[in-house]
Amino acid sequence: MEIAEWRVKIDALDRQLVELLNQRCRCAMEIGMLKRGSDLPIYEPIREKQVLAQVAEANAGPLSDRALQHIFERIIDEMRAIQKTKALGDQPARRDGYSPVFPDDRD
Amino acid sequence: MEIAEWRVKIDALDRQLVELLNQRCRCAMEIGMLKRGSDLPIYEPIREKQVLAQVAEANAGPLSDRALQHIFERIIDEMRAIQKTKALGDQPARRDGYSPVFPDDRD
Repeated sequence: MEIAEWRVKIDALDRQLVELLNQRCRCAMEIGMLKRGSDLPIYEPIREKQVLAQVAEANAGPLSDRALQHIFERIIDEMRAIQKTKALGDQPARRDGYSPVFPDDRD
Repeated sequence: MEIAEWRVKIDALDRQLVELLNQRCRCAMEIGMLKRGSDLPIYEPIREKQVLAQVAEANAGPLSDRALQHIFERIIDEMRAIQKTKALGDQPARRDGYSPVFPDDRD
C-alpha cells in the first residue's frame, strides 16, 4: 500500500475517533450536571488515575502506555474544562440546538 | 442514570478509543517506513493541517472544534514521535513480537 492509501485509512479512523470523543464528552457533561446537583468536585484525581490505569490495561500496542497516557491526559483535560463550564452554567448555546444527551437513557 | 453508570459508558468508550488509536498508530508506522524508504520528511505540516481540518469537518459536537484540535494535536505529536523512532531504526523490539501491520492489506 502507498502513503495515500494509508492516509485514507487514517482519515476514516479519525472520523470514528471524533464520534467516540463526542460520545465520551456527552457522558462527561451528564456527570458534570449530576456533580453540580450534588456539590461533588469536578476534579477527581482518583477517578482520573483509574481512567489512565484502565487505558494501560486495555492497551495491546503498538502505542506505548506512555503515549496513550499523554493522549488521554489531553482528553481528560478537555472534558474537565467542559464539565467546569457546564457547572458554572455558562456553556454557550450550540448553533445546532444541542441539549440533552442520550435521551433514551434518562429516566 | 447515576455517575457510576455514566462512568461504565466512559470506560467502554475508552477501550474503543485505545483500539482505534492503536490502529491509527499502525497506519502511521507503515507511512513512517514508506517515508524512510523514499527519503520523505516525517514532519509534513500541510498534511497535519489537513488532518485537523477534516476533524473539524467531521465534528457534530458537543466538543468544540478547538477542544478536538487540542486532542488531535496530541495524537499527531505522539504518532510523529513513533514515526521518527521507526525512521531512525531504533524502535525497541516489542515483547509480543509485533512486526508488520495489516499484513492482508500489503501487496
